[in-house]
Amino acid sequence: MAGTVTVPGSSVPSTPLLKDELDIVIPTIRNLDFLEMWRPFFQPYHLIIVQDGDPSKAIKVPEGFDYDLYNRNDINRILGPKASCISFKDSACRCFGYMVSKKKYVFTIDDDCFVAKDPSGKDINALEQHIKNLLSPSTPFFFNTLYDPYREGADFVRGYPFSLREGAPTAVSHGLWLNIPDYDAPTQMVKPRERNSRYVDAVLTIPKGTLFPMCGMNLAFDRQLIGPAMYFGLMGDGQPIGRYDDMWAGWCVKVICDHLSLGVKTGLPYLWHSKASNPFVNLKKEYKGIFWQEDIIPFFQNATLSKECDTVQKCYISLSEQVREKLGKIDPYFLKLADAMVTWIEAWDELNPSATPDAVAAAGNGKAAAK
Amino acid sequence: MAGTVTVPGSSVPSTPLLKDELDIVIPTIRNLDFLEMWRPFFQPYHLIIVQDGDPSKAIKVPEGFDYDLYNRNDINRILGPKASCISFKDSACRCFGYMVSKKKYVFTIDDDCFVAKDPSGKDINALEQHIKNLLSPSTPFFFNTLYDPYREGADFVRGYPFSLREGAPTAVSHGLWLNIPDYDAPTQMVKPRERNSRYVDAVLTIPKGTLFPMCGMNLAFDRQLIGPAMYFGLMGDGQPIGRYDDMWAGWCVKVICDHLSLGVKTGLPYLWHSKASNPFVNLKKEYKGIFWQEDIIPFFQNATLSKECDTVQKCYISLSEQVREKLGKIDPYFLKLADAMVTWIEAWDELNPSATPDAVAAAGNGKAAAK
Repeated sequence: MAGTVTVPGSSVPSTPLLKDELDIVIPTIRNLDFLEMWRPFFQPYHLIIVQDGDPSKAIKVPEGFDYDLYNRNDINRILGPKASCISFKDSACRCFGYMVSKKKYVFTIDDDCFVAKDPSGKDINALEQHIKNLLSPSTPFFFNTLYDPYREGADFVRGYPFSLREGAPTAVSHGLWLNIPDYDAPTQMVKPRERNSRYVDAVLTIPKGTLFPMCGMNLAFDRQLIGPAMYFGLMGDGQPIGRYDDMWAGWCVKVICDHLSLGVKTGLPYLWHSKASNPFVNLKKEYKGIFWQEDIIPFFQNATLSKECDTVQKCYISLSEQVREKLGKIDPYFLKLADAMVTWIEAWDELNPSATPDAVAAAGNGKAAAK
Repeated sequence: MAGTVTVPGSSVPSTPLLKDELDIVIPTIRNLDFLEMWRPFFQPYHLIIVQDGDPSKAIKVPEGFDYDLYNRNDINRILGPKASCISFKDSACRCFGYMVSKKKYVFTIDDDCFVAKDPSGKDINALEQHIKNLLSPSTPFFFNTLYDPYREGADFVRGYPFSLREGAPTAVSHGLWLNIPDYDAPTQMVKPRERNSRYVDAVLTIPKGTLFPMCGMNLAFDRQLIGPAMYFGLMGDGQPIGRYDDMWAGWCVKVICDHLSLGVKTGLPYLWHSKASNPFVNLKKEYKGIFWQEDIIPFFQNATLSKECDTVQKCYISLSEQVREKLGKIDPYFLKLADAMVTWIEAWDELNPSATPDAVAAAGNGKAAAK
């Protein structure tokens, strides 16, 4: 089928896909020994390590990896006063890595995640699957009951409109986790021994108009298509909330993808999530979020973006205004967050000047004038 | 978890679930030898066989099954002039079986479908899985990335609003097919050798606001919740179209389920679809539908039902009016179909008097008056 990515199964490809077009972003507070297991899959790529916490601590990276490491001092130096939009003492800091990347694609992973095995016992090359997901279209406008129609051995089923079979560009690929599932504190407490052992061999598009809980543990996206919306909010040190960084990004991203007709996929690849975080610590971080999400989700379900919002940046600024106006009533935190959303976009455009819409437009005009 | 149905894996349960509350509806033109393979799973249940085509032909049913068989003469006798809403020479005739059933649940299956095996090599009890799907809630309002949260070993992930974790009643369970996938004629022609061998171990709710191509080959539903919307339309003999019977029902059902906050699930169970139908014959039946669906799907995506539509019947009559008004412009066929939709509801209410809203209301009033 046209549009299908024909790369070998989950073996290590001889020429790594998108070798010079993808960065791997890793937030961490410890030595990155976990990379040893990923070496066959990650070593060809550039890593962006965002060191959280004490910047004077040295983080060891296994030999042979190509990386840049940014600690809090670097973030402050690079962003100046705008560094206020980057969270501290929370994995939300990872979004700084999205901003300084110069590549078209980003894959981000937590440092307690390891290589999982598929049901045949073979190591899963998670990055390769994400790339397949991103390089093949999505189907947000109508549901295909045989899942991803672009996958080998699958197609659109009877009754799927032919006009929609080209699909939409894929902006986000959301992967899953075997072993420790991504549960909130209450569920962790109620089901301390629950492990995810079900390998669901599917990738599917989350339909237009439907929100989902996006987890940042195993996530890839197209920076050019959706990067400026991948802001992980204000979490951790000095903030009333934690563990909602990826959720916040996911709500914003999905609303904007729906508006711009971009696709969001979830499902494969799985990785092995090794360690459950402490549910008591998590409850402390989450409990305001547990209340707030009851209002935030209807807010995002009803958020609308005007026709004038034709870039991710414009969409994001419009969302920040709606956050200020509608969520500011819930708690002053959201006023601060709305400000930070604007700062984030300013910082993004400063670090990515060629990607700003004005610059692109200007470049386009220049070319036209030169003809 | 509360709401989880705790029945054994895919083994034959000692007491069949819903034994006296479920009918199996089978449309056919031939002897039902295929039932032999289903005997361990189907024998405890009542079958409703709808014989299509020549009513003088005798259909053999293997011994030991409890069944009623209706041929065209029976349909004409039972419905009188209203029999015009039941298709002839098309498997759409099966919906007559939904109407004459007196049970709460219906499972319908094609006679070229056999028992499939799960990846461990065990026979899949498709009916049992459908019942599990119907008896556990759906999650139409927000997407759960670990699929069915009510399944053993699964739950709602972090970021899933707690207010939505009770879910919604499940009205429809849509199962899938191994071996021959449910493709349209063009796809059959382009990929004559494609077989579905991917077993995706998941059940998921199709989100509110999203339409899907519902296939009638392997389908179960709650008659009380959604029965009157399960009309398979006018297809086959004397009609300009075929092979869109289940699609039509699926579009109507999904719009009404969304309006009434009912859930629609898809995924497990699989069955083994043995034989591809002739793509040339199929193309002849389908080709008008291939054009029309480009208009019909946006029509259903934009259809709205008022607050007054608080029963399936009222919703369905409202849809019939919208079909007449908006789709009638495409082809006079839709005017005839809109009429048939009304006739269907009249016939349904005639055969199911206690289930009509007025009768229920009257019974309620009677009780109140007697106090």
